[in-house]
Amino acid sequence: MNLSILNTINNPSDLRALNQKHLPDLAKELRQFIIDIVATKEGHLGASLGVVELTIALHYVFNTPDDLLIWDVGHQAYVHKILTDRKSYFQTNRQLHGISGFPKRSESKYDTFGTGHSSTSISAALGMAIASQINGDFKKHHVAVIGDASIASGMAFEGLNHAGVTNTNLLVILNDNAIGIDPSVGALKQYLTNVKTGIQKQDNIFEALNFNYSGPIDGHDVFKIISELERLKTIEGPKFLHIITTKGKGLKQAEENQVVYHAPGKFDAITGDIPAKPSTLQAPKYQDVFGLTLVELADKNEKIIGITPAMPTGSSLKFMMDTYPNRAFDVGIAEQHAVTLAAGMATQGMIPFCNIYSTFLQRAYDQIIHDVALQNLPVIFCLDRAGLVGEDGATHHGVFDLAYLRCIPNLIIAAPRNEITLRNLLYTAQLGKLSNPLAIRYPRGRGTELNWKVPFKEVEIGKGEQLKQGESIAILSLGHVAKNVAHAIDDLTVSHYSMGFVKPLDTNLLHNIFEKYENIITIENGTIIGGFGSAIAEFKSEFGYKNTLNTLGVPDTFIEHGTVDELEDIVGISAKKIKAFVLKIMNL
Amino acid sequence: MNLSILNTINNPSDLRALNQKHLPDLAKELRQFIIDIVATKEGHLGASLGVVELTIALHYVFNTPDDLLIWDVGHQAYVHKILTDRKSYFQTNRQLHGISGFPKRSESKYDTFGTGHSSTSISAALGMAIASQINGDFKKHHVAVIGDASIASGMAFEGLNHAGVTNTNLLVILNDNAIGIDPSVGALKQYLTNVKTGIQKQDNIFEALNFNYSGPIDGHDVFKIISELERLKTIEGPKFLHIITTKGKGLKQAEENQVVYHAPGKFDAITGDIPAKPSTLQAPKYQDVFGLTLVELADKNEKIIGITPAMPTGSSLKFMMDTYPNRAFDVGIAEQHAVTLAAGMATQGMIPFCNIYSTFLQRAYDQIIHDVALQNLPVIFCLDRAGLVGEDGATHHGVFDLAYLRCIPNLIIAAPRNEITLRNLLYTAQLGKLSNPLAIRYPRGRGTELNWKVPFKEVEIGKGEQLKQGESIAILSLGHVAKNVAHAIDDLTVSHYSMGFVKPLDTNLLHNIFEKYENIITIENGTIIGGFGSAIAEFKSEFGYKNTLNTLGVPDTFIEHGTVDELEDIVGISAKKIKAFVLKIMNL
Repeated sequence: MNLSILNTINNPSDLRALNQKHLPDLAKELRQFIIDIVATKEGHLGASLGVVELTIALHYVFNTPDDLLIWDVGHQAYVHKILTDRKSYFQTNRQLHGISGFPKRSESKYDTFGTGHSSTSISAALGMAIASQINGDFKKHHVAVIGDASIASGMAFEGLNHAGVTNTNLLVILNDNAIGIDPSVGALKQYLTNVKTGIQKQDNIFEALNFNYSGPIDGHDVFKIISELERLKTIEGPKFLHIITTKGKGLKQAEENQVVYHAPGKFDAITGDIPAKPSTLQAPKYQDVFGLTLVELADKNEKIIGITPAMPTGSSLKFMMDTYPNRAFDVGIAEQHAVTLAAGMATQGMIPFCNIYSTFLQRAYDQIIHDVALQNLPVIFCLDRAGLVGEDGATHHGVFDLAYLRCIPNLIIAAPRNEITLRNLLYTAQLGKLSNPLAIRYPRGRGTELNWKVPFKEVEIGKGEQLKQGESIAILSLGHVAKNVAHAIDDLTVSHYSMGFVKPLDTNLLHNIFEKYENIITIENGTIIGGFGSAIAEFKSEFGYKNTLNTLGVPDTFIEHGTVDELEDIVGISAKKIKAFVLKIMNL
Repeated sequence: MNLSILNTINNPSDLRALNQKHLPDLAKELRQFIIDIVATKEGHLGASLGVVELTIALHYVFNTPDDLLIWDVGHQAYVHKILTDRKSYFQTNRQLHGISGFPKRSESKYDTFGTGHSSTSISAALGMAIASQINGDFKKHHVAVIGDASIASGMAFEGLNHAGVTNTNLLVILNDNAIGIDPSVGALKQYLTNVKTGIQKQDNIFEALNFNYSGPIDGHDVFKIISELERLKTIEGPKFLHIITTKGKGLKQAEENQVVYHAPGKFDAITGDIPAKPSTLQAPKYQDVFGLTLVELADKNEKIIGITPAMPTGSSLKFMMDTYPNRAFDVGIAEQHAVTLAAGMATQGMIPFCNIYSTFLQRAYDQIIHDVALQNLPVIFCLDRAGLVGEDGATHHGVFDLAYLRCIPNLIIAAPRNEITLRNLLYTAQLGKLSNPLAIRYPRGRGTELNWKVPFKEVEIGKGEQLKQGESIAILSLGHVAKNVAHAIDDLTVSHYSMGFVKPLDTNLLHNIFEKYENIITIENGTIIGGFGSAIAEFKSEFGYKNTLNTLGVPDTFIEHGTVDELEDIVGISAKKIKAFVLKIMNL
């Protein structure tokens, strides 16, 4: 490929030395560079292809890194990374020890704020802008780039609401492409559509919030963006620029199939096609077990409702949205609302399955406590992507949930060890027998059971099970990490129990175990502090057992990106590391 | 007093049998009834006085409890409680075993949703309205009453954004009085003011979000409200009614001094005056120690910033807002924004003190993890009202913080045992030596130290201290509960350690303790599960100690309302209960 311009550019200083007329060609080269690398190395594609011109213009007009630039949900920041000293590392994107797939302060002075979760950029940029005022720096610019799906989240509104009564040098750029990972939803999205199509002329929400609004302008016209940014640089106070972009711009398939090409995996860099999946049989994704089972249950139970905050495809709730559109809801990036909406439904006898990724449920923590658990409403939380999630890294690992949920009264917390247990938990949850809220945590990706679509069987709440009989050492695992344990002790005479629930604990089983085994090892894909191992340590203390207890899990540090296997090995819960640990104990 | 009309009314059926012409007199009697009781029994005053006419009109027009009525931040629901079978219990309001100061599902069929925290009503009402649609009930009405301070919170926006694309029978009533507990802030507040004064004519935010908007109307004209509600009953889809009220309406002092009369304590029901405080010397409120010390530090350290989400008076940040208005910010009910704003400031070298009540910090859990701790930004969280808070009850106890914070890497968690330790922690936090975020939790109300304004002394992070020397039994306390422990063991030869930090733990001290004492008792004003006692149980397991460990604290259940002393006794951490527990151990 011809990268004759890009080859001359390592950082924004190089960029700013270019004549403007070369910028459209640079945009082409950047797209080609990204497509070529993401095609083989994988990663987020569509979002960054959509902001090539915007990114060029921002670094061209503003004096980065002195001017502060924040990319909301950083998966749109690949162009930014390439233009800021990281072109030659870009092929290591999202790999162990490689660069992060999101902006990261420790990685570059150009990454002013880490952004893995959405809707944080306005608050962060405003904080910086206020700091500049206090520091007496009235020339510094503070720019937040935020998508239309992200700006509909409550936190972004809180930022706008505060910013509108300041006179800070803040520029919010709305990157409006009508899609997040899935198409945007909600009244604000309709409003923006009306603005773009000229239907909406009078009610300007952003002007009502005291912003100097301009736009909408074509986000792929780099000259127009530059001239508008130059104009906005001269205006005081909070400013709002509305630009229209196309997600996946420049790759035909990515433009036409934006959901798939958000993060398409490997594809053909020339044709853009995604190769057909190998036809060998694979165990299903946990997500599909959730999504397909829910439809199966909803066929017979008309009280079942599905809720997702902006993850219909990722969670596979889309199956239910397709089959029962009146009973399955994508509420947008609105985890707080999703949880309390579910609570409201539960008061009327509905059975809401609220599917939220473990890391994003952190956004609705108060609502779980105050609106669901305190009122003991039988909402079912499906915590997708629990445990270490791999390449998305530190911002996305779902490792805190056991600790933050375990202290909440009334809440049942389950962790199925495989697809069939998940399926049976979903079945059990909708029988109408539960008088408590229930959280079910399960991992991203494929399980182990080819034949998972077996007849339903009710799960006894709070019951563990013994998977293997051995001597002197008992391993207690929680959830899908049971698979690693099984591999680890394949040829060892060690007992293995899958506890199934961290709350309530199976105290009968635990008493048996503590009476029978000298050495007990807990294994979980979550933080050791406060999690499953901590629950067992509490049990041990409460009943005065003197057994040796070792707790394996995620240590007290943020875990970076890499494959799930690599990360599980690093924290010590891979089959290999578990085996080594057990052997060490056995030799003592 | 003359309550000739109110005496005939126990529930909405009685109310609806009244001729409309009597309603203004009923409003007068309701105000008198509330003033008379709250004057002696204490509680929230201003909010309910402001919605007397609205409450009458709602129950008059709608067929409650079949029609579903939700009061956002339920301290405005006293009139509602009085009109719904609880008039004769109203004098037990907020007392142990009495009625709750907030709507509570288990208390009445008219309380459709529990609301102690703000901004939940739209989501809950929408959930109910969607459930009604699915149940085929198209006649049921779903009404959320929300204040202007609460609707500015992100969660409320998320609810509006979703509701606007439904055709549910939802009515959102904005009770606009320009004040929450303190005066409302933000761009939306300015917008609403512009609407009220006629300045704003074109940009209607709520119409832009697809709501059928009407108003603003006079919220003290019961006839006007009734006729407007009757009209809105006939309109399909989401509706928005904007009414203007005066907080404290009907009591001169409460209208003129709305902040003080939000919850004025005891006052003279006839004159409205609050009696002068007794002139005896009292130990200071922890809040004032925070607020006054922060000003003292800010005098010398210009990097210090104060942030509160809508609690300037309650937190005493108002002292700094008065002294340094450019460096102290009330951001409104926006905990998520508050935390990430602080993170943004910290990236620019500021030292932000972000003061949030423990129970409300649950609203910003993800931001603590993702925006602060992951980037290891030295934000200082001041967790006010930690532990059992008393009469506000289950929705407001700050008992989960130790558990939900302890699993977060990088975060330091401190709990001062008295006002001087708090003062010294604040001093230590701003020396510029900390490279980690720090959470400091302290209780509501007065401490123990009359002479707290002593010279500053740096606190060593992670260090505990021995307060009393004894034998065989060691009590480890965290935070202000040290006071109860000291009373409990006044005449016992038991050792007492105040640990000061739950993270990092003082492992040197703990090793000494576990080597020296057979019996160890932890005491905390927080959940036993996952909290301080859990941390000690983890320590004990990790190092294989066989000591007997007992953990006292808040058990795994939601604790209702009562005085702090009553509740501490109920959960077993009063001086009396601690002493009894220690004596039991000593006799074994």
